[in-house]
Amino acid sequence: MDELIEFRDYRKKMNEKIFAMQNKNINRIFAIDTGSYREGALSAKIKELIGLATSLVLRCEDCIKYHMIKVVQEKCTDDEIAETLAIGLVVGGSITIPEIRRAVDILEQLRKKESKGESLEDLL
Amino acid sequence: MDELIEFRDYRKKMNEKIFAMQNKNINRIFAIDTGSYREGALSAKIKELIGLATSLVLRCEDCIKYHMIKVVQEKCTDDEIAETLAIGLVVGGSITIPEIRRAVDILEQLRKKESKGESLEDLL
Amino acid sequence: MDELIEFRDYRKKMNEKIFAMQNKNINRIFAIDTGSYREGALSAKIKELIGLATSLVLRCEDCIKYHMIKVVQEKCTDDEIAETLAIGLVVGGSITIPEIRRAVDILEQLRKKESKGESLEDLL
Amino acid sequence: MDELIEFRDYRKKMNEKIFAMQNKNINRIFAIDTGSYREGALSAKIKELIGLATSLVLRCEDCIKYHMIKVVQEKCTDDEIAETLAIGLVVGGSITIPEIRRAVDILEQLRKKESKGESLEDLL
Amino acid sequence: MDELIEFRDYRKKMNEKIFAMQNKNINRIFAIDTGSYREGALSAKIKELIGLATSLVLRCEDCIKYHMIKVVQEKCTDDEIAETLAIGLVVGGSITIPEIRRAVDILEQLRKKESKGESLEDLL
Amino acid sequence: MDELIEFRDYRKKMNEKIFAMQNKNINRIFAIDTGSYREGALSAKIKELIGLATSLVLRCEDCIKYHMIKVVQEKCTDDEIAETLAIGLVVGGSITIPEIRRAVDILEQLRKKESKGESLEDLL
Repeated sequence: MDELIEFRDYRKKMNEKIFAMQNKNINRIFAIDTGSYREGALSAKIKELIGLATSLVLRCEDCIKYHMIKVVQEKCTDDEIAETLAIGLVVGGSITIPEIRRAVDILEQLRKKESKGESLEDLL
Repeated sequence: MDELIEFRDYRKKMNEKIFAMQNKNINRIFAIDTGSYREGALSAKIKELIGLATSLVLRCEDCIKYHMIKVVQEKCTDDEIAETLAIGLVVGGSITIPEIRRAVDILEQLRKKESKGESLEDLL
Repeated sequence: MDELIEFRDYRKKMNEKIFAMQNKNINRIFAIDTGSYREGALSAKIKELIGLATSLVLRCEDCIKYHMIKVVQEKCTDDEIAETLAIGLVVGGSITIPEIRRAVDILEQLRKKESKGESLEDLL
Repeated sequence: MDELIEFRDYRKKMNEKIFAMQNKNINRIFAIDTGSYREGALSAKIKELIGLATSLVLRCEDCIKYHMIKVVQEKCTDDEIAETLAIGLVVGGSITIPEIRRAVDILEQLRKKESKGESLEDLL
Repeated sequence: MDELIEFRDYRKKMNEKIFAMQNKNINRIFAIDTGSYREGALSAKIKELIGLATSLVLRCEDCIKYHMIKVVQEKCTDDEIAETLAIGLVVGGSITIPEIRRAVDILEQLRKKESKGESLEDLL
Repeated sequence: MDELIEFRDYRKKMNEKIFAMQNKNINRIFAIDTGSYREGALSAKIKELIGLATSLVLRCEDCIKYHMIKVVQEKCTDDEIAETLAIGLVVGGSITIPEIRRAVDILEQLRKKESKGESLEDLL
């Protein structure tokens, strides 16, 4: 099974169920969450790297997965990603190592899709 | 497989092994953990909602699952649960979103059991 | 000096400076943060108790202070507050004890103001 | 002012107020908290070092202060303490550095008291 | 499937991929992480117990698994391990309970391997 | 008193005492901590913004102070800083608000120094 497709499908399915609860505050936070990574004084690329690093230090596996997809979509190089993970590791300590393993695993899956010419656009 | 039954069975099996270690302090904390949600100045229902919200902001998936079962057993409505999750989301930020997805997933499984007339009493 | 007045004045002063930065996402979160504790399916009182408990387990001292003022304004009794702190202590562990000391300190200051007939309305 | 005396006095005063709330669950956790560091299969010294390291990675300043007093009372050497802090730093990351500064500050104050022949017994 | 073997193999495979990224800071932290548990003023056994307790309060499942293997390799008894888990539970609260279940599960798997005379040396 | 000078002096004094403990692992982490923000594939400016955001979501006040000084030294604009704080607020939730107040307070003190033509170079 393709972990990235499974991740996308579960997110989509559950997000719909969450919106169906019609709680205004929840829906607003979801909207702001998306909005805060849009190009502004800082580029979307930098914002996604910040998103990746904060997700790593908070050890939120799905958040790491999400932002890893985003930084690859934003054309970040492996070195840029590694330096971002390094800051997260130094700041957050060795307890982030299991999440770094997962992050690099996801990165590799994304690079494979790229090398096969598969689109990454429909992963989120 | 029924995720709720699996959850119950693993908890029961491991709790027995933990008690078998005969560490007094561990056993006492387990007892207090159960005791602190009992009806007192505050109703059990309110206490379980507090348990759900604290589990959410600390992103403890099993704890969320446990308290979600409890709040449904306490006859909380979907709106009451959604407002509790909303506070957790605002307080704890978007890193709680993956746990909200899991929480709503569990809630849906519980509502299905209810609608089929299945008892929720033996889930904990 | 009155710790509660100092707290209020610093919050007000800094909130104005934050709003002056005119970052839409920050301002929206501030608005939602206030909105999510308003009476709905759950009463404002229950929501503030949830706010107090989540602040305690996350050990956010200013948040605890804020919600302690709120729960006293919402006419919570000492027993209701103690039971809420107890859940936070059990869930979050003994590392919450220093914050429980601060919480009870603030509660006592608020009760003193009440017993002198001072209004608590202008503390937030 | 003597920071260690101030710490002791505030703890004592507030603990009394907490006990006066007569919440059984809170009082039981306080008792277990003390009990779990008593000599058992592991010595009190090792347990206090564990208490110091867990307090450091959770960045609980008062907890660090408390266990630093304890490990000095248990006759730990500076090297033993430094190695414990090092594990906390590696595990918890550079965000623990401000707490390591505070920890070493407290350690120095304790060593000064020792070198003056002052008793450390009444600090807790 | 053998959970312990799977854990070892995934760690090895991903560590190699992480090293292949050739980020000096990441590689250095990995080296220090290993180094900080080596015998010094404190024994490797005590350090691993500290590693277990800090992993528990931070609820890092893979870290708990890793240090549980280590403490068993260091010949810790079940009582020593239980007392360490008890401190983690008291310090970190009931949200550590799901991780204590997982920890005891792993411990049992390790004891079974021991009783069958299987070597634990190649698990890390 | 100048909060920024006090911060600098306490950090310097305590860092020296920490180095004097001659624990190799601690000293290495301090070195890597500094090294990981140096220009590489990513600019020092972007890295400091990442440092600021991770410090915010982990609510490490001294770390926020440190990186706020750094991002101002790196010539970040108020909008760039506000967008970084906004991501931290969305990711980390309203419990980061007290730290955002402190962050903006520090930012204002730094801008005042700049407008008076005072050097910020000797603050770290």
